[in-house]
Amino acid sequence: MKNLTLTSIDAADGSGARRERSRVNVDGVIIGESPVVIAGPCGVESEAQTMTAAVAVKQAGAQLLRGGAFKPRTSPYAFQGLGLQGLKILAKAKVETGLPVVTEVIDPRDVNWVAEYVDMLQVGARNMQNFTLLKALGRIKKPVLLKRGMYSTIEEWLNCAEYILSEGNPHVVLCERGIRTFETYTRNTLDLSAVAAAKELTHLPVIVDPTHGTGRPSLIAPMSAAAVAAGADGVIIEVHPEPEKALSDGDQALTPNQFFTFMQRFQAVTQALAQSGPKPSVL
Amino acid sequence: MKNLTLTSIDAADGSGARRERSRVNVDGVIIGESPVVIAGPCGVESEAQTMTAAVAVKQAGAQLLRGGAFKPRTSPYAFQGLGLQGLKILAKAKVETGLPVVTEVIDPRDVNWVAEYVDMLQVGARNMQNFTLLKALGRIKKPVLLKRGMYSTIEEWLNCAEYILSEGNPHVVLCERGIRTFETYTRNTLDLSAVAAAKELTHLPVIVDPTHGTGRPSLIAPMSAAAVAAGADGVIIEVHPEPEKALSDGDQALTPNQFFTFMQRFQAVTQALAQSGPKPSVL
Amino acid sequence: MKNLTLTSIDAADGSGARRERSRVNVDGVIIGESPVVIAGPCGVESEAQTMTAAVAVKQAGAQLLRGGAFKPRTSPYAFQGLGLQGLKILAKAKVETGLPVVTEVIDPRDVNWVAEYVDMLQVGARNMQNFTLLKALGRIKKPVLLKRGMYSTIEEWLNCAEYILSEGNPHVVLCERGIRTFETYTRNTLDLSAVAAAKELTHLPVIVDPTHGTGRPSLIAPMSAAAVAAGADGVIIEVHPEPEKALSDGDQALTPNQFFTFMQRFQAVTQALAQSGPKPSVL
Amino acid sequence: MKNLTLTSIDAADGSGARRERSRVNVDGVIIGESPVVIAGPCGVESEAQTMTAAVAVKQAGAQLLRGGAFKPRTSPYAFQGLGLQGLKILAKAKVETGLPVVTEVIDPRDVNWVAEYVDMLQVGARNMQNFTLLKALGRIKKPVLLKRGMYSTIEEWLNCAEYILSEGNPHVVLCERGIRTFETYTRNTLDLSAVAAAKELTHLPVIVDPTHGTGRPSLIAPMSAAAVAAGADGVIIEVHPEPEKALSDGDQALTPNQFFTFMQRFQAVTQALAQSGPKPSVL
Repeated sequence: MKNLTLTSIDAADGSGARRERSRVNVDGVIIGESPVVIAGPCGVESEAQTMTAAVAVKQAGAQLLRGGAFKPRTSPYAFQGLGLQGLKILAKAKVETGLPVVTEVIDPRDVNWVAEYVDMLQVGARNMQNFTLLKALGRIKKPVLLKRGMYSTIEEWLNCAEYILSEGNPHVVLCERGIRTFETYTRNTLDLSAVAAAKELTHLPVIVDPTHGTGRPSLIAPMSAAAVAAGADGVIIEVHPEPEKALSDGDQALTPNQFFTFMQRFQAVTQALAQSGPKPSVL
Repeated sequence: MKNLTLTSIDAADGSGARRERSRVNVDGVIIGESPVVIAGPCGVESEAQTMTAAVAVKQAGAQLLRGGAFKPRTSPYAFQGLGLQGLKILAKAKVETGLPVVTEVIDPRDVNWVAEYVDMLQVGARNMQNFTLLKALGRIKKPVLLKRGMYSTIEEWLNCAEYILSEGNPHVVLCERGIRTFETYTRNTLDLSAVAAAKELTHLPVIVDPTHGTGRPSLIAPMSAAAVAAGADGVIIEVHPEPEKALSDGDQALTPNQFFTFMQRFQAVTQALAQSGPKPSVL
Repeated sequence: MKNLTLTSIDAADGSGARRERSRVNVDGVIIGESPVVIAGPCGVESEAQTMTAAVAVKQAGAQLLRGGAFKPRTSPYAFQGLGLQGLKILAKAKVETGLPVVTEVIDPRDVNWVAEYVDMLQVGARNMQNFTLLKALGRIKKPVLLKRGMYSTIEEWLNCAEYILSEGNPHVVLCERGIRTFETYTRNTLDLSAVAAAKELTHLPVIVDPTHGTGRPSLIAPMSAAAVAAGADGVIIEVHPEPEKALSDGDQALTPNQFFTFMQRFQAVTQALAQSGPKPSVL
Repeated sequence: MKNLTLTSIDAADGSGARRERSRVNVDGVIIGESPVVIAGPCGVESEAQTMTAAVAVKQAGAQLLRGGAFKPRTSPYAFQGLGLQGLKILAKAKVETGLPVVTEVIDPRDVNWVAEYVDMLQVGARNMQNFTLLKALGRIKKPVLLKRGMYSTIEEWLNCAEYILSEGNPHVVLCERGIRTFETYTRNTLDLSAVAAAKELTHLPVIVDPTHGTGRPSLIAPMSAAAVAAGADGVIIEVHPEPEKALSDGDQALTPNQFFTFMQRFQAVTQALAQSGPKPSVL
């Protein structure tokens, strides 16, 4: 694709040579080698809720902790996140569990100071084309998790990564999280072809969010397995101690027990796929 | 889902018991156990082209041969298929290779006599809600491959299977082939969540068509692996001796050599997944 | 668009000259001059229901009566229409009111005999690409109302008209009825740009179905006015004596009283637009 | 719709009474009475280009001038707008023509100082759910033009207006600009039902952008007429002195001459519709 200068898998010299795949280091956890699991609650609601979730996902084998302190919500009257207090809770959860922390940022004015508290900053689907936010993230050194917009073509998504790289930050991980279609059984339509496509077009790691991508706990295990088979470098999963009491997106989160079962299966599948030979890719 | 009386995974007595998964026997090849591969040209164009493709897919390890004798085409001036002559070529290819044959039927008046020539009748995406065709297929005994419409919800798709079963034919295999979205990098958006969903809602086998689902040869291998990881019972792949000369859909078909490589990878992945334990499914 | 040989507004000789606009004569009612209104129940359910609706739409000023005797339904267990009995009721309603009758046909085997009972045959959205049905309709002399598929591009829609014309029947009226999108407030997304587009690409008349296009009685009046302003040659509206008791699509039908009010407004708008000068069209 | 507290057409007391329709005053031009026309170039590229366009649209009868100083672009390497220099050119164009000015703002940090230069601030489709931007706009007194996101439901769009009103700024005008669908003949699918829907759900004025909504100059006139017939309070049209040389979106802009012809037709249609009685609305 034209304009993909820095993110392209093709070397800049036009020789037809291909760049090496990027590996993104999130405080010691490498994304871009064997599949990683990021897990945690949708929103940070309280210290107790976050700690419980963090300990549970750590014990089950997750490598990174997710949790939202700034929540972009459809209605202005819905829970908007705890802000700074939420970041402090996440920092404490990291101390407790050792898990590096990923959190969403929605305002370009917040990028620098939020980066002091967490290990990876996430751009949410609604902000994928918030170009001032992307530029601000391009000027820090912390890794960025760039979710695909629910309405965005693959080309637009990769161009948004290009915005970050062109400002100087090469530590970008792409995240497919489902696109909006006419289907209503699933909350979104998880587009795994976009994972395989992004892997053939760019050198960046790509992970998958089956929680938002399907909106159904029962589909998270099969779609996570499918994601890795399609070439994904990991998954990001919502886990909540009491999903039915969650302040946001509760009906799609896994309980700690469900997540434990999920991890058993996920690890078996990723090991089996790893032993089956090189990752599925272009012919 | 309401109205899914015969296709539902839930037993009819309301006890909460679940029905056994169906296995569909296509002249000796069982769909619903380990993953099967159906392969062959989009359209039957000549005896030479079909025989070459049939021998190649057989040698590479495919279990069923596909080929269209009746082609539903956007324009009335495009190649519409060879009709009866095409069916005779397919019958000959079966004699030559031993592969049972799958072909599309588009007219309810053709169902009975076409069923004499082939082993499985396919309903194409454009005809998914051609209810008179579905009813005609419900009155024969041969297996039916029911593609999901490119615009159809999962609920509509399963109701179309219900049309066939309710007329008396239980031998139905579902096929996800991509839905129409705003994305243009891929020809359609392959909806693998629909595979996992169909497997949790019905007892029918489900296969995947990554050729139409992606429209890109380079994505067929990763998406086939992903399909099986999501729970699919097989894939259907277009193979053409000379894709660049094909009368329909040439730019998405694999060559015999590409298909041979594909099969190596596909078999390694399906074996690895089989050894990793029970198929991914509901928690 | 390539392949639009007979339906194109451009003369076949490549001179850049434009063909004259077609007018389709439905037993004396001309579609393609001033806007017409087709109205009546979704399905013919009984003689009483159909007669009541027919008399009401006639009194309010509709020029054509619609009513379905063959209903393509999502579930095999839903009301499928009265078939021949329904056609006889429609014929009787025509005798009573003088309104020519439009009805849907879904099986190519029915085309010839159904054409004996009604004045215009409709292809429904689900059957737009039922090519064997289109070919059968191309071999009769009666006018055809071709609905756009809910998933179909404008190009595919016009190619389906080309199927009918290329078989010898030039009496085709196009009907935009809404496409399937992510929006859920409306049942479909009525695509009025497709009306203006079809008018600049072909010489065929184009009408609009705001009942299915919006699924909301409150939006039928504004969208009918908008349709005519966009260049439509008429509208088709569902009217039911008792919408809450309808066997199909009751929640979107107008009552006779609502339809009477609708007609007052519709006629005022179409008259005003007619007096405002030539129809909006290309610059 | 729940949560639409301040934007709802229904009075807050639950009495079933309806609020009066809002009129938004943009430095003397009232939006919410008879239809207004906003016109001008996509981006401010130079003083000469902007002045030429401004004078042309003024002479043709437009009431407000549009022009972008900050351009949200898919690629980081595309023209991003002139920024402050662009705002100064717009201010000069206002002095020259007397037309109040509308411009897009994309960064919450820019809201206050940009509001010093222009009369109305626009939220573009890509930023509809940039909630920090919405909140910043809710704290100024200048009118806001809120475009619907290309992927956004009507409910989400109205909730974004609610974000602005709930922060204290009641001067909001909604703008439908087309949603993203599978159709490719038009750049987007202009959803005029959303206009009629927004008018029945809220008291806010609603305008339509047929330039982005269709992407085709030939469709701008018919779709503008349709917009007004559907109940729209105005349209926003891109006009460029030399569309083929435009730095953004040139292929969809009207030339000054085309815009002059457009205005003749638009005024005839709006007058005719005004004289035909009350605006089309709910039954």
